[in-house]
Amino acid sequence: MTRTTPAGTPLGDDFHVYDTTLRDGAQREGISYSVADKLAVARLLDDVGVGFIEGGWPGAMPKDTEFFARAATDLHLKHAALVAFGSTRKAGAKAADDLQVRALLDSQAPVVTLVAKSDRRHIDLALRTDVTEACAMVADTVAFLVGEGRRVFLDAEHFFDGYAFEPDTALRVLGAAMDNGADVAVLCDTNGGQLPLGLADTVGEVIARTGYRVGIHCQDDTGCAVANSVAAVQAGATHVQCTANGYGERAGNADLFAVVGNLVTKLGKPVLPHGKLAELTRVSHALAEIANIAPDTHQAYVGASAFAHKAGLHASAIKVDPELYNHIDPDLVGNDMRVLVTEMAGRASLELKGRELGVDLAGRPEALSAAVRKVKELEARGWSFEAADASLELLLRREVATADQQAVAAPPFALESYRVIIDHPADGDVVAEATVKVHVGGQRVIATAEGNGPVHALDAALRRALLPHLPWLDTVRLTDYKVRILTPGGGAGTDAVTRVLVETSDHETEWVTVGVHGNIVEASWLALCDALVHKAMDRESVVARG
Amino acid sequence: MTRTTPAGTPLGDDFHVYDTTLRDGAQREGISYSVADKLAVARLLDDVGVGFIEGGWPGAMPKDTEFFARAATDLHLKHAALVAFGSTRKAGAKAADDLQVRALLDSQAPVVTLVAKSDRRHIDLALRTDVTEACAMVADTVAFLVGEGRRVFLDAEHFFDGYAFEPDTALRVLGAAMDNGADVAVLCDTNGGQLPLGLADTVGEVIARTGYRVGIHCQDDTGCAVANSVAAVQAGATHVQCTANGYGERAGNADLFAVVGNLVTKLGKPVLPHGKLAELTRVSHALAEIANIAPDTHQAYVGASAFAHKAGLHASAIKVDPELYNHIDPDLVGNDMRVLVTEMAGRASLELKGRELGVDLAGRPEALSAAVRKVKELEARGWSFEAADASLELLLRREVATADQQAVAAPPFALESYRVIIDHPADGDVVAEATVKVHVGGQRVIATAEGNGPVHALDAALRRALLPHLPWLDTVRLTDYKVRILTPGGGAGTDAVTRVLVETSDHETEWVTVGVHGNIVEASWLALCDALVHKAMDRESVVARG
Repeated sequence: MTRTTPAGTPLGDDFHVYDTTLRDGAQREGISYSVADKLAVARLLDDVGVGFIEGGWPGAMPKDTEFFARAATDLHLKHAALVAFGSTRKAGAKAADDLQVRALLDSQAPVVTLVAKSDRRHIDLALRTDVTEACAMVADTVAFLVGEGRRVFLDAEHFFDGYAFEPDTALRVLGAAMDNGADVAVLCDTNGGQLPLGLADTVGEVIARTGYRVGIHCQDDTGCAVANSVAAVQAGATHVQCTANGYGERAGNADLFAVVGNLVTKLGKPVLPHGKLAELTRVSHALAEIANIAPDTHQAYVGASAFAHKAGLHASAIKVDPELYNHIDPDLVGNDMRVLVTEMAGRASLELKGRELGVDLAGRPEALSAAVRKVKELEARGWSFEAADASLELLLRREVATADQQAVAAPPFALESYRVIIDHPADGDVVAEATVKVHVGGQRVIATAEGNGPVHALDAALRRALLPHLPWLDTVRLTDYKVRILTPGGGAGTDAVTRVLVETSDHETEWVTVGVHGNIVEASWLALCDALVHKAMDRESVVARG
Repeated sequence: MTRTTPAGTPLGDDFHVYDTTLRDGAQREGISYSVADKLAVARLLDDVGVGFIEGGWPGAMPKDTEFFARAATDLHLKHAALVAFGSTRKAGAKAADDLQVRALLDSQAPVVTLVAKSDRRHIDLALRTDVTEACAMVADTVAFLVGEGRRVFLDAEHFFDGYAFEPDTALRVLGAAMDNGADVAVLCDTNGGQLPLGLADTVGEVIARTGYRVGIHCQDDTGCAVANSVAAVQAGATHVQCTANGYGERAGNADLFAVVGNLVTKLGKPVLPHGKLAELTRVSHALAEIANIAPDTHQAYVGASAFAHKAGLHASAIKVDPELYNHIDPDLVGNDMRVLVTEMAGRASLELKGRELGVDLAGRPEALSAAVRKVKELEARGWSFEAADASLELLLRREVATADQQAVAAPPFALESYRVIIDHPADGDVVAEATVKVHVGGQRVIATAEGNGPVHALDAALRRALLPHLPWLDTVRLTDYKVRILTPGGGAGTDAVTRVLVETSDHETEWVTVGVHGNIVEASWLALCDALVHKAMDRESVVARG
């Protein structure tokens, strides 16, 4: 049997931090990951040092099947083992003949988590079979997968309701898995109806009665998923299933970052590899951007306001001793005590990020200082570069060029002016029309186009103006467009600025740019221009290298 | 001594649901309530049946002083007692001479909650006095207020850290209050660093050692505020302090709706008056609108997605028996199992709302059916009427007129067309300019104006066109403008629509209107027009009555 242990975690295989953002977390309304998104999410989770990443349900979801196929070649995880999720064989069949079970093997994932019903009422009503066959389905499927060299965990669905209703049935289902080679019996609060004191009692009782290695999977329907997960660990569970930012169906799952924060800083359990706790804040925000969900500014540990103080009552005393007013040192989780969190604006992190983007800032203290200043200033006005590497790269290159007193590389085109007209005519629908005047290839070009809204119109007009001179634009497409209204400084209403994220693709790679302005049209324009300039710069460096 | 007991709660004074949305909740970054907002919040909290509403800190905050003054005449609470929050007298002075303590009396609130430091380190470093004087400050202030006929609760700040550091000091501070007539010793997890199992142990121990009536106040820094509050009740606390939607400093406070939901549905404690649990969802969303914070769609119990099911795994079985897949019946808390929550779209609630707005739908089943259909259809497209009574009233009046085959009352003006131009010139800043063509007072009027952004320009142009014909417009001002980008149906990116809420005032009253459209300018236009039409209709009905 293959033993896949989390690499580098001080607790080794003794404790599992198991992430299911890509499977159970993707059940959240509004989340729709592309395969490229899923790969990016997995890399970020690996950055945080989780032990296991549940990638999806191969065979049931075509996108998940493709994810595992691409993961086998594209994903080089440093810490985590990849997990395929699936159900046991169908009633009355053989595991070896079940196409869905075969798909789990085909995924090449070294670990498989099987979901099984452990509540008698669900076995009756949803599975429409008896307890003996339900247990045989578990036993047979576990034995088959273990025989094929997979490590197997069992997700016992609706365990707490089932155990309360008919404890012996719930335990028989666990036994069917554990007696056939499964490693962990994961007790799932699938309806999310538990509270910590009662849940801890049940977890302790199950461990005392069976001696099994027990895991916990909580949903947040009582607002207690984090507390329930931690209480289960205090009661003896050694495997916690969470999702990043608590994403998940209904009220969501247990938030990975709060659970891990609590385990490490409150219970003293070093469940992540050394140094990884400080990645929590960055990774939380980056995952929110990929999911296209506004980060919860008030999220425990990682929220932008998690260590921000406003109360006049405290303000003077905080100066005396901040330790007395924060439950932990915010640095521990990569967060900051200021109201304004400048995620990127540390010298060290910006230098590191520059290296990642191919901009060497190591021997250029002046350029680095200027870049830090610029990023801080822009972030205070609502910019965010966490999900906009392409805009950050352009910013760093400009700062380096300025510090070196070089001319900044000329962009492929220059704007003279644009005008957008939103027209609500006497009869008919609202229409948007844009005209751009640009200088490109030594010529002045004017082009006009219509669009559904002002931004579509602007994008169409710019394309029409540039395409005859920059034929490589033909493959470049705006693939995603995200808008968020922000009130920098926490003010309300009319001070709002608009932040626009634009994802652009040329069929080979994707890159993301950002624009912020009081006017949504100008914010979009800034992001659109960065996207095209970045592509042009990439082409030039390819030509230079060639 | 005045005994103010929560009216109508089955548990009477035996259990306190204590809300601090208006004081501690207002510490959340980005929240800034006007006095009118505070009165509206108090009314909604009273609708839910909480026992106590902490209104603010009179004397320390001018807005809070004004709130208590207006509450004395304008607020007619059915269930809740109003509470003034403040600190004990200064060191080395007399309570009767302390201006801040005087302000608590002047507020006329029947209940006062005093905050006091119970952690030795805070007494040393922040208060800069000794434990004896700290206790005298508590004893003296409590005795004075009780002597003046007030009911007094003690908020023991940083209690859990203080009790862990030096238990006897923490208990002495509680004793100084309770021995002098305070009713409840509220243990505050001010830093929010507690976890439920440990917190429950401490609460139980304090009750066993002192016999005091104990309350609990939790912050959410470990993501466990709800669980901690419930665990404290299980350990013997009979007073819980919460905020609506968990608003509060840093990671926030314990969410009133989740705590109450858990106490009633999980622990069987009837802590709200009969029938009030079903108000949770409506009130939660209305409070979010007043705070200008997007409702958390995934909030436990009250979130739009709290009972929404997406998982293919469950979908078929849910049809068999929904009870097995929801931790409670969503109707209990006024929520809905559908993905799309139609807050208003029940016949009964719309009829009730109509009565509130002066539109009688009781004997008009056809008009009511048409209105329900219209509201559902609009909500599916992203409209929300919870915070936009004026737009809802117009909608209901139009449906009644149509059903009665009457002509809809003519609006005071009619739009022919508008045009907004956003111009980014060759040199200079982006500017917005709007031209409107309207028919008013039998004439066709064209007016043009500039603005900071497209909406400001449109508002200015409309005003310029109408003012000569509708002189009453002179007192009408746009006082707040809120924008939210939505993706109805949970889709991402470019399908987004914009929802605009406009608050308008004529110095006497305020009214709120809503507009939704793919184009932010058109959405704003719809809300602006409703605001003016509503004012005109109000004037007509005054004239008709006069």
